[in-house]
Amino acid sequence: MKDKRPSSGDFTVGVDIGGTTIKAAAVSADGAVSHETVIPSRAEEGPEAVLTQATEAVRRVMGGRRSGGGRCAGVGIGIPGIVSANDGLVRYPPNFTGWSEVDVSGELSRRTGEKVLTENDANAAALGEARFGAGVEHPDFIFVIWGTGVGGGLILDGKIFRGPGGGAGEIGHVTIDRGGPPCNCGNSGCVEAYIGQKYLSQRTAKLISGPGARYPGSVMTELVEGDLSRLDPEVISRAAERGDEAATRVLTDAGAMLGVALASVVNVVDIPTAVIGGGVSAAPAFVFNAAADEMRSRVLRPHRGAVAVKRALLGNRAGVVGAASLLL
Amino acid sequence: MKDKRPSSGDFTVGVDIGGTTIKAAAVSADGAVSHETVIPSRAEEGPEAVLTQATEAVRRVMGGRRSGGGRCAGVGIGIPGIVSANDGLVRYPPNFTGWSEVDVSGELSRRTGEKVLTENDANAAALGEARFGAGVEHPDFIFVIWGTGVGGGLILDGKIFRGPGGGAGEIGHVTIDRGGPPCNCGNSGCVEAYIGQKYLSQRTAKLISGPGARYPGSVMTELVEGDLSRLDPEVISRAAERGDEAATRVLTDAGAMLGVALASVVNVVDIPTAVIGGGVSAAPAFVFNAAADEMRSRVLRPHRGAVAVKRALLGNRAGVVGAASLLL
Repeated sequence: MKDKRPSSGDFTVGVDIGGTTIKAAAVSADGAVSHETVIPSRAEEGPEAVLTQATEAVRRVMGGRRSGGGRCAGVGIGIPGIVSANDGLVRYPPNFTGWSEVDVSGELSRRTGEKVLTENDANAAALGEARFGAGVEHPDFIFVIWGTGVGGGLILDGKIFRGPGGGAGEIGHVTIDRGGPPCNCGNSGCVEAYIGQKYLSQRTAKLISGPGARYPGSVMTELVEGDLSRLDPEVISRAAERGDEAATRVLTDAGAMLGVALASVVNVVDIPTAVIGGGVSAAPAFVFNAAADEMRSRVLRPHRGAVAVKRALLGNRAGVVGAASLLL
Repeated sequence: MKDKRPSSGDFTVGVDIGGTTIKAAAVSADGAVSHETVIPSRAEEGPEAVLTQATEAVRRVMGGRRSGGGRCAGVGIGIPGIVSANDGLVRYPPNFTGWSEVDVSGELSRRTGEKVLTENDANAAALGEARFGAGVEHPDFIFVIWGTGVGGGLILDGKIFRGPGGGAGEIGHVTIDRGGPPCNCGNSGCVEAYIGQKYLSQRTAKLISGPGARYPGSVMTELVEGDLSRLDPEVISRAAERGDEAATRVLTDAGAMLGVALASVVNVVDIPTAVIGGGVSAAPAFVFNAAADEMRSRVLRPHRGAVAVKRALLGNRAGVVGAASLLL
């Protein structure tokens, strides 16, 4: 590959390997996405199953796209876990069975015959947003993936800040209350332990149902047809858009709690812009405003005027576009 | 100046401009310090007074050192506040009267005829420690100046991580409890609001004196001759070294609280080594161990094995050595 930037007919395959699905697509140099494919992930069957699936997904996308005359410039992979900069080893992706360290780039390169680059999925999504999304106007930003968990990445001067070991950007595990509830990570009081999907849903359920419920008439009960296990950020967002008090309350508080964590990050890395992606990025604007207000009230004085919280622009394509961006 | 690195006979003048004192010294390329001078700072009289004092301090050091035959390779300045990378402007140093933005490098260069570089004082001290102190073994570390306040800097690959606006590294203003006590900065629950000198002293005073004091027999009462306003980290450290329970308790808790903030920083920037300087760096080792234990229990799993908390090695010379390091 002599040209680093593929010409307009060229494309890169972006693969977003998750615990639930593996998504892949062809991405051209201008960020246009085509030939998307999504398959249920067999992460519980161990690395070999996942590598086989990813290889199959790449082949499927390449086959489809090549029939249109394009040239593949390589494959970018986004995957959970810490990906080391030196050797590209993927270490301990959470919710993947039987992984310790796997050379994902090496294995997929051998199987597909393509150049392969691998990056932590949140970092890759952040890069996608930097190249083709909210980052076009912001060379430096804190990226947050707010959904099941709260992940993130730091973009500095348009590039991923990986930290010396490749594990930087874990915004979800910034402590906002040292005496707070336990987090999945083993710490207590992480912002994820307040605003991750499970915790948000639990909090919402308590507010709308059962003894002591403060908002028993919430529209959410109707939206989930009485099945509170179906309360997720999407339902809560929809209810908030319809003016539901409980939903508004939960999301405003959650935005503010994210703002507490972000303020700490701003004071440490001096990046006053946050871009929010993931499932909750579809939430109403007041959630972003709540986060920004809280940040503004907490960051050091010189940062206050610059604080901004933006919605990510790539939606659920951030993963594949970001992975593909690794080679652009 | 053709050679970037002065030869052995050459020296750099390091100037540490503080709200209380202005310190200056000649520093050779191997970090050796000579011709130290300390003058009380007239920070309350405004920028012109401070610039005049700094100029005088530089002249005094240069005069002394030159008589020994050396050649001055430039002047490095450390000063509180945000120092922008582009234009070197020093903005709003706390506790300095009448400063908005001052071109310290430009002014001092004009007055001394030397090349002058200016940096935030905590960043400069971190750089000094990176070059000649604890950082010799650690290319990446979080530097904490723990004294009156809690400042800091991030060293990445031996260099200062300034952040896009030059304000990175404010470890003291990482929130450890969103509902915590008010901090000088306007936020609440910053780690500085728990372990800065004023708060430590207040907490200690409550533990050893007055109604409800849990340790009325503390040796500290004796050490300060009954004048509790003299309780400072040095006194508390001395008492702890003698096994005083109240002092041990206060410092252990303070170390742990610093550890909470450091854990958040580690999760965001992936730098598991902290180096503690400032007045409290003379504290007994158990304080550092308490910080490390707390960090280890809170950082994400992949960082746990790597967590280390080290004592800074340059003591009260970190400021001048660090400032001089800007030109080395």
